[in-house]
Amino acid sequence: MQADWIAVDWGTSRLRAWAMGPDGPLAQAASDKGMNGLAPEAFEPALLELVAPWLAPDRPMPVVACGMVGARQGWIEAPYLEVPCAPAAPSGAIAAPARDPRLRVRILPGLCQQAPADVMRGEETQIAGLLAGEPGFAGLVCLPGTHTKWVTLDGGRVTGFRTFMTGELFALLAQNSVLRHSLGGTGWDEASFLAALEETRAHPARLSAALFSIRAQSLLSGLTPPEARARLSGLLIGAELAGIEEADAPPGRIAVIGADGASAPYLAALRHAGHDPVVLDTAAATLAGLSAAHNALEAQET
Amino acid sequence: MQADWIAVDWGTSRLRAWAMGPDGPLAQAASDKGMNGLAPEAFEPALLELVAPWLAPDRPMPVVACGMVGARQGWIEAPYLEVPCAPAAPSGAIAAPARDPRLRVRILPGLCQQAPADVMRGEETQIAGLLAGEPGFAGLVCLPGTHTKWVTLDGGRVTGFRTFMTGELFALLAQNSVLRHSLGGTGWDEASFLAALEETRAHPARLSAALFSIRAQSLLSGLTPPEARARLSGLLIGAELAGIEEADAPPGRIAVIGADGASAPYLAALRHAGHDPVVLDTAAATLAGLSAAHNALEAQET
Repeated sequence: MQADWIAVDWGTSRLRAWAMGPDGPLAQAASDKGMNGLAPEAFEPALLELVAPWLAPDRPMPVVACGMVGARQGWIEAPYLEVPCAPAAPSGAIAAPARDPRLRVRILPGLCQQAPADVMRGEETQIAGLLAGEPGFAGLVCLPGTHTKWVTLDGGRVTGFRTFMTGELFALLAQNSVLRHSLGGTGWDEASFLAALEETRAHPARLSAALFSIRAQSLLSGLTPPEARARLSGLLIGAELAGIEEADAPPGRIAVIGADGASAPYLAALRHAGHDPVVLDTAAATLAGLSAAHNALEAQET
Repeated sequence: MQADWIAVDWGTSRLRAWAMGPDGPLAQAASDKGMNGLAPEAFEPALLELVAPWLAPDRPMPVVACGMVGARQGWIEAPYLEVPCAPAAPSGAIAAPARDPRLRVRILPGLCQQAPADVMRGEETQIAGLLAGEPGFAGLVCLPGTHTKWVTLDGGRVTGFRTFMTGELFALLAQNSVLRHSLGGTGWDEASFLAALEETRAHPARLSAALFSIRAQSLLSGLTPPEARARLSGLLIGAELAGIEEADAPPGRIAVIGADGASAPYLAALRHAGHDPVVLDTAAATLAGLSAAHNALEAQET
């Protein structure tokens, strides 16, 4: 089975590839060979492991990649485009140095913002996917994850964005801090989540004290691990919402692009705050963005 | 050399003991046998390792201890006294089950607060030390550390307190998060510290986004490791100050009780915010608090 071209989402810890035909994906493959820990010369073999069966013997296969593969520690450094600008613009793509003549790899550019300083690699392609489906989308896009991004869109361009370390803070606090004694591994209590959300949304300055109160409540009043877990998430997301709401809120709509696990608390938080977010799946948005970039690259080269 | 009694500060990671004479400490000793990782039966041997040379053959030696030794996972659980109350009140002390007849060990009670839920073990004895020197102190006491405490005092009693996880967050972010690539091990830039302090003191809701900006600034504009390190501390302490200033500020003075390394950024922050804090050394305050408790225990038993 041969592809027309190959779409690649290459993040910090995962590599995903799709063999693309005229009507969308024909096949997909994935490995844990993310950017983290790959030396520059290890990227091409990691890609070939997944995509070799889809290559043509007699022509270079177009491969369009996004994500941390374009970081300074990646295969080759792709530029950051500075906002305001269109996301994942093909003019900013850079060729990766593949030795195998069956590969023609381009890495899409990230986005940067000077003040407040911020960067993204990968999410811009999901944004491009949203815009491919709805070019006039104006409003705010939330991309939950280890580093959650909030992106403002207007006129087909990213006008600004802000990254919150919420996911990484949750993981560090749940696994490595004194709170680990209170949390346990699984379980969720929605009422605790919403109460905590309201607490730091109204009083974000209390965040770091409210975090310690999780430990105190489990010592003093028997807070259960599912309550503690949901409370930790609610406190962090409540402070994040306060930060977003304090900034100039854009007119228009709110979209959430994410996988189910990461998105669920954000959707609950936004609905609780009175919003009605549009929901997009990460893989679908990424594929739509990579497809738009592939089409633009082909048109540019014709 | 025999002691009149023995003062013990037994925290999570350290054990410190002083042989006390009529005019103060005659000798001191310390080990890394903190509460963490000691089984209940290991406490007495850990104490004897340090204090055996100071014991009398023919009478039980009074030992007064404070700190995590009284936690649920400690030697024996000491109660929490609920605020408002006097700190380290001897009526709340509990006897630890020592087998050696040369030891008579009492552990001082911690403090708890129901709403917002909070607990302390050890710092209450430092507060008692401050009050021993100045019974009428009214105001706010800051005790910097892994879990920094802010305590309000009035009429010789603790009327409330709040714990911020600032020190633990700094360590987790500096060592285990994406920011570790930007920080490096040492170095400090005071201007970066103060600018960051002002940023989150004015806008605490932006904390988790401002944290990520450290990474972005080092990628985009060459933020140096000493600048990044100071900026991380400033952002965390700025948000903490906003939380303290948002609460009803007590009339009166501000004191900082701490070791040099932990106190320095708090002192700089408080002075920058226009305060003129009194400074006390941790060990001196602890010894003064343990001495006051010892005297009260002896008076109680006479």
